[in-house]
Amino acid sequence: MDIKEQALKKHYEWGGKIEVISRAPIESREDLSLAYTPGVAQPCLEIAENPELSYKLTRRSNLVAVITDGTAVLGLGDIGGLAGMPVMEGKCCLFKEFGGVDAFPLCVKSKDPDEIVRTIELISDSFGGINLEDISAPRCFEIEAKLKERLDIPVFHDDQHGTAIVVGAAMMNAVKLAGKKLSEITVVINGAGSAGVAIGKFLLKLGVGNLVMVDIGGVINRDESYENPAHAEMAKLTNINNIKGSLADALRGADVFVGVSKPNLVTPDMVRSMADKPILFPMANPNPEITYELAKESGAFIVGTGRSDYPNQINNVLVFPGVFKGALSVRARAITEEMKLAAAYAIAALIPEEKLSQEYIIPSALDKSVANAVAKAVADEWLKSQK
Amino acid sequence: MDIKEQALKKHYEWGGKIEVISRAPIESREDLSLAYTPGVAQPCLEIAENPELSYKLTRRSNLVAVITDGTAVLGLGDIGGLAGMPVMEGKCCLFKEFGGVDAFPLCVKSKDPDEIVRTIELISDSFGGINLEDISAPRCFEIEAKLKERLDIPVFHDDQHGTAIVVGAAMMNAVKLAGKKLSEITVVINGAGSAGVAIGKFLLKLGVGNLVMVDIGGVINRDESYENPAHAEMAKLTNINNIKGSLADALRGADVFVGVSKPNLVTPDMVRSMADKPILFPMANPNPEITYELAKESGAFIVGTGRSDYPNQINNVLVFPGVFKGALSVRARAITEEMKLAAAYAIAALIPEEKLSQEYIIPSALDKSVANAVAKAVADEWLKSQK
Repeated sequence: MDIKEQALKKHYEWGGKIEVISRAPIESREDLSLAYTPGVAQPCLEIAENPELSYKLTRRSNLVAVITDGTAVLGLGDIGGLAGMPVMEGKCCLFKEFGGVDAFPLCVKSKDPDEIVRTIELISDSFGGINLEDISAPRCFEIEAKLKERLDIPVFHDDQHGTAIVVGAAMMNAVKLAGKKLSEITVVINGAGSAGVAIGKFLLKLGVGNLVMVDIGGVINRDESYENPAHAEMAKLTNINNIKGSLADALRGADVFVGVSKPNLVTPDMVRSMADKPILFPMANPNPEITYELAKESGAFIVGTGRSDYPNQINNVLVFPGVFKGALSVRARAITEEMKLAAAYAIAALIPEEKLSQEYIIPSALDKSVANAVAKAVADEWLKSQK
Repeated sequence: MDIKEQALKKHYEWGGKIEVISRAPIESREDLSLAYTPGVAQPCLEIAENPELSYKLTRRSNLVAVITDGTAVLGLGDIGGLAGMPVMEGKCCLFKEFGGVDAFPLCVKSKDPDEIVRTIELISDSFGGINLEDISAPRCFEIEAKLKERLDIPVFHDDQHGTAIVVGAAMMNAVKLAGKKLSEITVVINGAGSAGVAIGKFLLKLGVGNLVMVDIGGVINRDESYENPAHAEMAKLTNINNIKGSLADALRGADVFVGVSKPNLVTPDMVRSMADKPILFPMANPNPEITYELAKESGAFIVGTGRSDYPNQINNVLVFPGVFKGALSVRARAITEEMKLAAAYAIAALIPEEKLSQEYIIPSALDKSVANAVAKAVADEWLKSQK
């Protein structure tokens, strides 16, 4: 049986990958009168008087909604929210297993950003945080921005920021190994969707010297006009030499390639045209922009992909469980840029200098201790910002 | 410590009464690739092709949303959705513990019926059923009616129908013990809110001969005009003799009293003015319209209350876990009137004739076998309707 058949069989067996259980025993009359009527009236009244107590007296203290509209599910495109639910449920499993965070999957049956925002806003009191998932660009930027404005709980579009943080962590270690400095390198990102744009902005925050974004129309530059507001914004922020052309043009002399696009777009010649000790993160999943083997054969110094069967898996499961665990632990009202940076530094620092190698620039996606380190960094950063 | 203090202490200890766990193991690379990417793409594609498979491949197969707007929480009134969440969580615990049904609590931050309906509609693909809770009348009637029209999953306002079903079950057994027939009795319901109106309609379906509804303005009758559309409707359906006046007037010669109103409204004289072998269900909680002792002292044949510390506790926990368990088990698209009747008959039938007594007309609220009997009756009834 191949992986597709196996996964399908398992999903039939599981009958849903999440389950809602009771933390309160309900066996006796007394149990009933404490967890339900008449006793339950008391916590209700306390919250009515002081809404902040909802973080002590209900599960919202440890609860995140994983919400999609199904417009960009994995690499499958706009298959709709209902069909995207196995991914949302899987994400909830990871939240719980890696971060101890309760997460509940929801799909919204609308493609109108304002309606999606309003729906999430109206149910947001039920949760301690909102994790947006698999929402197509550029709609996802608008939806996230409006929600952040309206809600006083953390809102985090994982496809953007989770990916950006883990790429940032991997890149810091890779660049260090290559003996280069972030401020002096050129990074080329292929794919200017939600992940690509977020990675780009995050790398600029991390201090990358020259960033070049490439999309279907070629290198994003200042002489073209862009309908997509995110592309227009990136045109201003990136490409200090204002180069033009194709991916091949962009890669010539570049230090790092980041791919969040499609399989097999990067050729051995392109790798060979890059600067000394080229670093490649071809992350199209499951088939990367260039395979691990081919990249290495072509002279790549370090290769990281989204795949678990090669070294250096760049997987945002290293990020989101810890980010929300940390934010919830201190009742943060948002995930700030500083908290994201702290998360990336914390992940990179988990590999001690002496263990760092070309095959080990990022912790294993299965390492459940990562979430605690990320949580601590994120929580500390929030507390610092509140002083 | 009194019950209030105890319950509050427990709620602090619990830190939320529900928890979302993973049903899929996430320990190895293989686990990750089956429950999450890349394997998860396969169930997504199957659902995209055949949406009905969402009932096999996601948790919606066994999942109910417990939703409130917080406008009528317990007897506390409009305390808001956030403050109502401890009740919603408690309800979810009961769903799981009694029916094995996963239930997830949500509060909607709006009081506009259309906005509430739209919000629930937009997230309804995430669930197999919708349990409405603690929504004020007459808004609850409109919200439920619109949702039933728009959704093809069961929608059930428990405060209405759960209460109606359990009262119907208790009444069938009580009337049988009293040697009377439903078609020949007069039932007086005091309180024409959501529960009272639903009980009234349900008793008419069960075949009660004469039903009189009393609200703050006195007996509902055909000569008055009512702003509340539910009251206007009940004026047409009830009170065959078109009597007028107060609760005391209504009770004179009546066989059954049902109270969903306020404490201490029924006096010993009123009980004494009723027909032979009076049956009283004073269900105001925690303090009934007349206490169990006082009603018995005044000549009541059978007394049932909402309280667990007296015989004949009339509690809708006997209803909703089984109703949804049954409906979900056969993928019913609605809870029909026939399914509600089947649930009431099933509950009443759980007490064998020889065990029926004035102190035992309804199973214990803690009897976890009731849900299975209700589920079977409800499922069978749905399947019958589909032939």
